Amino acid sequence: MSAAAVPELKQISRVEAMRLGPGWSHSCHAMLYAANPGQLFGRIPMRFSVLMQMRFDGLLGFPGGFVDRRFWSLEDGLNRVLGLGLGCLRLTEADYLSSHLTEGPHRVVAHLYARQLTLEQLHAVEISAVHSRDHGLEVGAAVRAPPPTPGFGSGPAEGTDGCWGSCVSHCTPRKTESVAFPIS
Amino acid sequence: MSAAAVPELKQISRVEAMRLGPGWSHSCHAMLYAANPGQLFGRIPMRFSVLMQMRFDGLLGFPGGFVDRRFWSLEDGLNRVLGLGLGCLRLTEADYLSSHLTEGPHRVVAHLYARQLTLEQLHAVEISAVHSRDHGLEVGAAVRAPPPTPGFGSGPAEGTDGCWGSCVSHCTPRKTESVAFPIS
Repeated sequence: MSAAAVPELKQISRVEAMRLGPGWSHSCHAMLYAANPGQLFGRIPMRFSVLMQMRFDGLLGFPGGFVDRRFWSLEDGLNRVLGLGLGCLRLTEADYLSSHLTEGPHRVVAHLYARQLTLEQLHAVEISAVHSRDHGLEVGAAVRAPPPTPGFGSGPAEGTDGCWGSCVSHCTPRKTESVAFPIS
Repeated sequence: MSAAAVPELKQISRVEAMRLGPGWSHSCHAMLYAANPGQLFGRIPMRFSVLMQMRFDGLLGFPGGFVDRRFWSLEDGLNRVLGLGLGCLRLTEADYLSSHLTEGPHRVVAHLYARQLTLEQLHAVEISAVHSRDHGLEVGAAVRAPPPTPGFGSGPAEGTDGCWGSCVSHCTPRKTESVAFPIS
């Protein structure tokens, strides 16, 4: 899909987002990532693993979804769609990064969160995801997407049309990953 | 990635493939799929679910890998890389579909298998995959990739540059899916 198909995003503050009227839908997504000491093929450092979702439309996106503001706070709703909050892992306002809105036919404001986990916590979220009730419908899997590896193509840093390129442009406010994700 | 980057594949018979010398590497991959009575968003029939893998390079591929012919038959090696063979699910020569070779710098002959499972069997393979020892290295996840859904983009039938387009052209003999996969 070309970059031209992506609707323009406008960054707004959390306070501004909270003042939007009932005609706006709120979505919350989170980048859950962990330092990974593993080596691909026994020689290429993995550095970090980032949890993403294979969506129904074949694109990758950060895990999350719509939050009904009539019933939930942003964070309660996000923990709910992530299947978190029952264990010891729970996202809070301290993990909030940014809000962006799209002024198209769908009035959506998207809130992004990020939290660095241990690799064991990340794995627990993956295991939980494959057992979730909705597995295989809107979401085809929780996917551990390694950061772009030199010599192996797709990655946001390389501007290709691979999965990473699609997901970052489609599902997240642009350039946010450079704020939150310490690619060394 | 453009179609031009895909090496030419030449179909050969299983007998011919078995006669190739020790300079050839054999890879075996399987399309495991299941009829799925679910409905996406409660209204779009899922029809079938196909198990794929998110590879280290950001592309999707059918699960499988290289088989060392010095130690394993094609099917024993395939069951081993799939983590099958210990339970009641085990691929056999009856699931064999086709062999293709690439005559590039790497002398690889790829064997493709297909087996229709129940949705419960497919789910068991997904659960097994997230617990496997190599999870998160060469393979980022087992991914349930629904067939292309009209109105939602990516799919081999639509010739887009989405994930399905990439995986089918990169990881499998072309057009094989139309033989084995009963898209109604």
